[in-house]
Amino acid sequence: MNPRIKWLRNQLSSLKLEGMIISNPVNVRYLTGLSEEGFLIIAPKENIFVTDSRYIESVNRKLTISDEIVSYNSKDLSKYDYESIFMTNDNVGFEENYVTYEKYKNYLHTYQVNLLETEGLIENARIVKDEEEIEYITKACEITDKAFEYIIRNIKEGMTEKEVAFEIEKFMIQNGADGLAFESIVAFGENTSMPHCVPTDRRVEKGDIIQFDIGARYKGYCSDFSRVIFAEEVKEEYKEAYEFVLEQQRKISSLLRDGANVKTVIKDRETEYKLKNYDILHAFGHGVGIDIHEKPILRSKQDYILKENSIIAIEPGVYKAGKFGMRIEDTFIVGKTECRNLTKSKKDYTVIKLG
Amino acid sequence: MNPRIKWLRNQLSSLKLEGMIISNPVNVRYLTGLSEEGFLIIAPKENIFVTDSRYIESVNRKLTISDEIVSYNSKDLSKYDYESIFMTNDNVGFEENYVTYEKYKNYLHTYQVNLLETEGLIENARIVKDEEEIEYITKACEITDKAFEYIIRNIKEGMTEKEVAFEIEKFMIQNGADGLAFESIVAFGENTSMPHCVPTDRRVEKGDIIQFDIGARYKGYCSDFSRVIFAEEVKEEYKEAYEFVLEQQRKISSLLRDGANVKTVIKDRETEYKLKNYDILHAFGHGVGIDIHEKPILRSKQDYILKENSIIAIEPGVYKAGKFGMRIEDTFIVGKTECRNLTKSKKDYTVIKLG
Repeated sequence: MNPRIKWLRNQLSSLKLEGMIISNPVNVRYLTGLSEEGFLIIAPKENIFVTDSRYIESVNRKLTISDEIVSYNSKDLSKYDYESIFMTNDNVGFEENYVTYEKYKNYLHTYQVNLLETEGLIENARIVKDEEEIEYITKACEITDKAFEYIIRNIKEGMTEKEVAFEIEKFMIQNGADGLAFESIVAFGENTSMPHCVPTDRRVEKGDIIQFDIGARYKGYCSDFSRVIFAEEVKEEYKEAYEFVLEQQRKISSLLRDGANVKTVIKDRETEYKLKNYDILHAFGHGVGIDIHEKPILRSKQDYILKENSIIAIEPGVYKAGKFGMRIEDTFIVGKTECRNLTKSKKDYTVIKLG
Repeated sequence: MNPRIKWLRNQLSSLKLEGMIISNPVNVRYLTGLSEEGFLIIAPKENIFVTDSRYIESVNRKLTISDEIVSYNSKDLSKYDYESIFMTNDNVGFEENYVTYEKYKNYLHTYQVNLLETEGLIENARIVKDEEEIEYITKACEITDKAFEYIIRNIKEGMTEKEVAFEIEKFMIQNGADGLAFESIVAFGENTSMPHCVPTDRRVEKGDIIQFDIGARYKGYCSDFSRVIFAEEVKEEYKEAYEFVLEQQRKISSLLRDGANVKTVIKDRETEYKLKNYDILHAFGHGVGIDIHEKPILRSKQDYILKENSIIAIEPGVYKAGKFGMRIEDTFIVGKTECRNLTKSKKDYTVIKLG
């Protein structure tokens, strides 16, 4: 049997569950490798993937005997078929953080079972990556580094945020990415003060601070990366914040190793932000995998002991409302003694010439 | 007050609800124009938009006095603030088809109210478009037609599905689109047999049938469009299916007018498919708006009377497993006497020369 499903079956058994319904597409993909629409039922007797007419041919091309997954086209399953997957009143897990209230009621009606919350069982397993996942994320990070190297050599006078974002996407796809890990953030000047802004038609000008927050997707896996660079000159007002952000990232990455508690490490950073009177507008980072934002979130509320081979993005930032903002972010792999960079672009002051 | 929120308040009043919590981002955007992360609370005394530190500055830049929406940063709201938004045991609507089971429990705890299902209240209102929405979708359709015209003149020998898909995206963005309405489908030859395939590295060859299913997004609104074209020649085996699909689209678009029932029109199409022994792998179409797939879905199960100024995509298709498939799709606006095309590319046999 597919080893991840085997693992899940053991977990369900420990939790005294007779099965589980998995409908979050990222969890389905993690367990089965399938990216087609559908849902997976871990039932007492078999593993069932239910899809529809649009995808059944593609699913059947991908599944192998060793997966031990039976696929069905939903139109071939009757009310009775669904009722006979489990015994009445079996304890069956579901994804309470994904399934809508309407779907929950529909599940109760369809399967006639007791539905029990699974509290992020699969999401928690996804935190630590295996060799293949590390290979894919490493490759996504390499593409991202190259895209950054390319773009800083190719920003020309008068280019808009949108145009720069598009050049990044083009480069990533031409260099082996499936596509973007998320919509790129490219912000010039005062637009940088909003951490999650959308690229606009604002043109680059001399003296601008330029924020990139970009990532590639490779074989389904993401990278996450942010840098700030400067057009023609680095204004004095940016330097204190830049050094502070860089220092915070260095501290976090040296402390977040196997066995470290996220809570402790981030709590200390929050104290340093307060001393400097900087606002904290977002988390200091997050897991990265098939989803761009995975567990663990790097917040002081997160009482979580990190494990080796987890992959996390560390992204401290400083923002001055209406003026400017900046964050520096790399994707890291958690090791025994510290985090190791998977994105490797340098972090010295980068000043580009326009035109 | 913002007119859409005013409308919603009247609806809630008829339903004897003291308020509603709107968390589906498409519904939030429809009601407020805001695309920032957050949720909207229609409360007895005011309209509240709750966002977080990443977005508060951007939200405040967009809201005007006439919106009558108060914005909050979630970190500034205490447990007590949330509890005092409604009276205990007020009847408050929520989106049962969007809110997860976990969030539902969290709402009960946070607001101390009776949560009542609203059964797609806002989604149903979104079906009929206003003047501005029609203008944006019309523009998205124009960009899509132009992209199609461009790509059929620029497919060269040896190009892959991925490369063609990328050229379409580039053209759309360079011609005013915000981006894609959805990930483009470009399929060559046998890959067309799967209606929702992802572009691969398959190269175009003489004799190939080529399927496009593409759309642009303009000011947040989508277009949806499919065509099949042929490389160098139209093989005989494709012609019967092509004529059939075209005929089905023509019939549907002439019958789906103001006052027509989706059920009746589609039921007749299903009969014709059965007579020809063609499988039906997907719905015959769907509403198009901020979401690429909106209500109504064009299925015989859908007992729905169409209204003027609804915008729908009509996309009959025929699929032969392992061999080929094809669908033809246009975005239409529902009129008094028939549907009118918003995508206007011709549907004669289009044969392109490679190289």
